[in-house]
Amino acid sequence: MSKNKLRKIAKLPSIRRMPQYLHIAKRLHKEGQEVVSTTFLAKELGVEPIVARKDLEITNVVGQSGIGYKIIDLIDSVETFLGWNNNSDAFLVGVGAMGSALLKFNGFENYGINILAGFDISHNILGIDINGRKVFHIDSLPNLARRMKVNIGILCVPEENAQEVADMMIRGGIRAIWNFTPTKLTVPDNVVVQREVLASGLAVLSVKLGKLFAEEKESGC
Amino acid sequence: MSKNKLRKIAKLPSIRRMPQYLHIAKRLHKEGQEVVSTTFLAKELGVEPIVARKDLEITNVVGQSGIGYKIIDLIDSVETFLGWNNNSDAFLVGVGAMGSALLKFNGFENYGINILAGFDISHNILGIDINGRKVFHIDSLPNLARRMKVNIGILCVPEENAQEVADMMIRGGIRAIWNFTPTKLTVPDNVVVQREVLASGLAVLSVKLGKLFAEEKESGC
Repeated sequence: MSKNKLRKIAKLPSIRRMPQYLHIAKRLHKEGQEVVSTTFLAKELGVEPIVARKDLEITNVVGQSGIGYKIIDLIDSVETFLGWNNNSDAFLVGVGAMGSALLKFNGFENYGINILAGFDISHNILGIDINGRKVFHIDSLPNLARRMKVNIGILCVPEENAQEVADMMIRGGIRAIWNFTPTKLTVPDNVVVQREVLASGLAVLSVKLGKLFAEEKESGC
Repeated sequence: MSKNKLRKIAKLPSIRRMPQYLHIAKRLHKEGQEVVSTTFLAKELGVEPIVARKDLEITNVVGQSGIGYKIIDLIDSVETFLGWNNNSDAFLVGVGAMGSALLKFNGFENYGINILAGFDISHNILGIDINGRKVFHIDSLPNLARRMKVNIGILCVPEENAQEVADMMIRGGIRAIWNFTPTKLTVPDNVVVQREVLASGLAVLSVKLGKLFAEEKESGC
């Protein structure tokens, strides 16, 4: 099947919403609930019920009309769709402010990845332990990644080092790069990249706020 | 003009891409370039040229056929569209791993916001200074926000405190909440919220990687 065909089946916004369905389902499961309706899920996400239903159809979960989804089925289907039922090992490079925050974050086991270690170039932090994850020198990355068959690299280095470090990841056999730098990486066809642009959310917030102020000005509030 | 009408004019994905256009334009400006083509911008963002052209049309920037945009015009138009030409003051609440990372981040002046201070409940960090920003007790938030006319609140507290802290922000006159918690906040009509779900990017990366592996298996690599 061609990449385009696959992409058509699962649209990007649907994929982006999956972690939220998963999070809600896990919360309800913890609270002892057994079923959840599309209407409830849609409301929690702030989307129309038809959108939630179509999103979850992609995961092949089967709901019951008038009742909803069994929560354990829903969790299993979303996790399987995302490939999060088997956690993948990851290395994180660039232990600055953002890199440290990600190393300290404990929720990643819920997100299908297991960060094994951090890498940096600064001698001040080599060998230290952040949340049970040791920080190694960047030079050891390709060998370690290859030996430990690590598939995922998290890139938190300064913009000007991004391509060079991505190349090291690829030399180490890493196949997926979660890119927190603003650099557009050049990678071979057998490597996938997802760029994380924090400012995107802030742009949406700014535009919403600007509209709010404009509307109030218009209506003379 | 109704909210829906406005939303139609500037689609969410277009707004989300604006910080990237801005970042590239500023980089090129620093490098001494004076014009940039749609084709170049599109390639850097990994979108089709028609998409980039339509995105930038929203900002009212005027390009010249066969040449492109004057970079200073482009920067000005995107910043004006986002309202980032006048930085808004912001308070950040919850100085944990993510909150600290955001306080340490120096790029926010490029993103139209100016984080004035952090707030927390933990006595260990009250009064400390992170990157020139002092950490105050959460109880002082509503009064300080009102006195300093702060419009933006950045919410980095644990999930279970999210609504309570959002209510404090709103009592303080905050009108826009950048929500890093997975909680769906209940807010009045005159407050806007943007939820930041880091796991969304990871979901997209996981699905891309899964497709890659499936394709390789199919083709017998």
